Amino acid sequence: MIKKVLIANRGEIAVRIIRACREMGIETVAVYSEADREALHTQLADEAVCIGPASSAESYLNMERIISATIISGADAVHPGFGFLSENSQFARLCEQCQITFIGPDADTIERLGNKSQARNTMIQAGVPVIPGSKEALYEPEEAVPVAAEVGYPVIVKAALGGGGKGMRVAADETELRHAFCTAQKEAVAAFGDGTMYLEHFVQRPRHIEFQILADKYGHVIHLGERDCSLQRNHQKLVEESPSPALSEALREQMGKAAVTAARVSGYENAGTIEFLLEPDGKFYFMEMNTRIQVEHPVTEWVTGIDLVKEQIRIASGEPLAYTQEEIHLSGHAIECRINAENPKKNFRPSPGKIHDIYLPGGKGVRIDSAIYSGYEVPPYYDSMIAKIIVHARNRQEAVAKMQSALGEIIIEGIDTNVDYQYELIGHPGFASGDTDIEFIDRLSEEES
Amino acid sequence: MIKKVLIANRGEIAVRIIRACREMGIETVAVYSEADREALHTQLADEAVCIGPASSAESYLNMERIISATIISGADAVHPGFGFLSENSQFARLCEQCQITFIGPDADTIERLGNKSQARNTMIQAGVPVIPGSKEALYEPEEAVPVAAEVGYPVIVKAALGGGGKGMRVAADETELRHAFCTAQKEAVAAFGDGTMYLEHFVQRPRHIEFQILADKYGHVIHLGERDCSLQRNHQKLVEESPSPALSEALREQMGKAAVTAARVSGYENAGTIEFLLEPDGKFYFMEMNTRIQVEHPVTEWVTGIDLVKEQIRIASGEPLAYTQEEIHLSGHAIECRINAENPKKNFRPSPGKIHDIYLPGGKGVRIDSAIYSGYEVPPYYDSMIAKIIVHARNRQEAVAKMQSALGEIIIEGIDTNVDYQYELIGHPGFASGDTDIEFIDRLSEEES
Repeated sequence: MIKKVLIANRGEIAVRIIRACREMGIETVAVYSEADREALHTQLADEAVCIGPASSAESYLNMERIISATIISGADAVHPGFGFLSENSQFARLCEQCQITFIGPDADTIERLGNKSQARNTMIQAGVPVIPGSKEALYEPEEAVPVAAEVGYPVIVKAALGGGGKGMRVAADETELRHAFCTAQKEAVAAFGDGTMYLEHFVQRPRHIEFQILADKYGHVIHLGERDCSLQRNHQKLVEESPSPALSEALREQMGKAAVTAARVSGYENAGTIEFLLEPDGKFYFMEMNTRIQVEHPVTEWVTGIDLVKEQIRIASGEPLAYTQEEIHLSGHAIECRINAENPKKNFRPSPGKIHDIYLPGGKGVRIDSAIYSGYEVPPYYDSMIAKIIVHARNRQEAVAKMQSALGEIIIEGIDTNVDYQYELIGHPGFASGDTDIEFIDRLSEEES
Repeated sequence: MIKKVLIANRGEIAVRIIRACREMGIETVAVYSEADREALHTQLADEAVCIGPASSAESYLNMERIISATIISGADAVHPGFGFLSENSQFARLCEQCQITFIGPDADTIERLGNKSQARNTMIQAGVPVIPGSKEALYEPEEAVPVAAEVGYPVIVKAALGGGGKGMRVAADETELRHAFCTAQKEAVAAFGDGTMYLEHFVQRPRHIEFQILADKYGHVIHLGERDCSLQRNHQKLVEESPSPALSEALREQMGKAAVTAARVSGYENAGTIEFLLEPDGKFYFMEMNTRIQVEHPVTEWVTGIDLVKEQIRIASGEPLAYTQEEIHLSGHAIECRINAENPKKNFRPSPGKIHDIYLPGGKGVRIDSAIYSGYEVPPYYDSMIAKIIVHARNRQEAVAKMQSALGEIIIEGIDTNVDYQYELIGHPGFASGDTDIEFIDRLSEEES
């Protein structure tokens, strides 16, 4: 059994992991940057080691320093949280080489699943549906035309090395395609120095549905139902919920099976997430697998009752799963809102600074995961998410009402936050009806401007 | 359906009720004393009415002012919370006369169940076990002797009008009984002006086990399992949990049935609690029925998933129960610790005053019901309970660890609290083993002194 965990992260997820360890009787070591001396995770851990200056590259992304801190503190395991080094196969390998338990899948699995085209091919072989697209790399518009006809318009052209929306274009027909291909390729060459392109069917107004997976070292794989993360702004999730209002029991079973297959054929171990796009007609496509704990894991925890971080630690310790698929039931409805230090009225500009006063709600069905406190100074160097409000009620309607009630109570003085923005979003009739997709927020913003 | 509720209470329970109403789309009216202008319940309600000076007698116990505030504000219902007027049949009757819905049982039921000897007789007739005792009033020691022989030693002599431990004496045998009777009777005459006595078998080292009941207007009565409230200091509950580590499934069913019978034969309606004493050998005795929401209701809410305050409102609105007994399942384990503004090192002396800084924990399985915030001044006029920490985990051991972890994080500066005392109590091996009874804390205190 793991005895001492170094948490290679900061903020609310570091606090979340420290609490899980403490409840399991496991010692904790926090690492912190010079900007995080007063951070809650630094204060709550049994030990804390400064690993460098504020810049992430020199602290939370600095593998050598984190490995050193682990060895010096005598920790036998590292929990990477999310972001930072959590999906870095090199870091996982370094841990393996130093005989440190990396709480997550092994380095090879992270690497395999991080390579999107390899992951895609694995899924195709296993019969997990993927978005129809080019099987081989495309270099000329003329190569793209027959592929597009095969996968069906609209299509999206993507740079092989792409990311962040760069080197991507949507085309509704052949004429648009020729133009889109050239434009996207030019962007790709400029941004990544490589003009290798792919083409896929473009899924319209899809929902983002992801399945939580748990897999132990003994080949047991179960899913814990889905999370609907369709409410996104610039590809950033804002509100997540479980179960999804769009899934029937039959579809849940079908997608759940696909998710379990995806994890199984990847030789996956530990907690992971299979992301799907779901079309309004119920067709779904594998997008990618995240090999770490997710920001939105609490909604799954609340509807299943299972503590995912504790399960991660148990799996990494070599314990077999304590649950079978038949024992997993989704009970009630959970919603999470991410609270960011940003100003929605000024294009969501980050708003670091000192929190002079804070009041957070409580009561039945309200969970708060945060790392802020009265007098805390939000540093400008990291992600702007400062808290997560998670609610649970017996059905979606009550959960929505509870979230509104909870958001309405929050007081955070000294910095700007998106609390009022979230309050409006949750109160929008479109959200109340459950009829959302990943373009929902973008459409709202267009309507307003 | 109820549209507007006046909350005839203060503190965390007032906040609890306001939140439930808000989530149900019901308007809220707070009442507050002059000492509670800055109180959280005063701030959170849609409207707030000052009903008098700090003294409870002139504010929270002042029926006329509360009724006036209800009528003036146009509220159609009153929620009495616990304490104050919550079990005052005269107040319930006043509400009825003014066509205000009293969220609780009707005045006659409150009155009937408030009369302990009448309640006892009702239970005996219904076959609900009560502590064996004298059937008629006793006036002389010689009358007590044969009764004691019949109910079995040890026995306890009680004043008919007694309360708060006055006019009560325990006797182990006949000699002690003669002495105890005279002493207790003298005390009774001095304290209550009446020497009418009763005698009961004295239950040794019992647990305090209470069952939560829900009863609608249509004769449906269900129980929501038990709460074990054995950890008491001077008859004040400190820690409560559900389920009780002492109950087998068979005993739960047996006691649950007795509780449902007790509510049914009392013609009970709304949420209520049947208190039992449980002997180590599994024998249990009806003590009394509380005709209101209890402080410790959150532990039941967490293991059943049912919102008791919302159910109270639904029942009072005339809705039938949405659950059958078969649909009630206790899932996991919940524990509540009461946080009081008091100094355990100075004989639990109340410690009102200004809270300069506060940090309360959060995360999975942690619920906080409180009405305090940074800068809030705890007034000296009311109950010293300022917060309740409730945790939930998949089993008792994990719940105990979670409670310790949560208590360990709390920071409340400016006043004294019992947080450290609770931390020690929860960490005591006797509590961890679950082997407690209502004298547990008194024995601990004796050991220490």
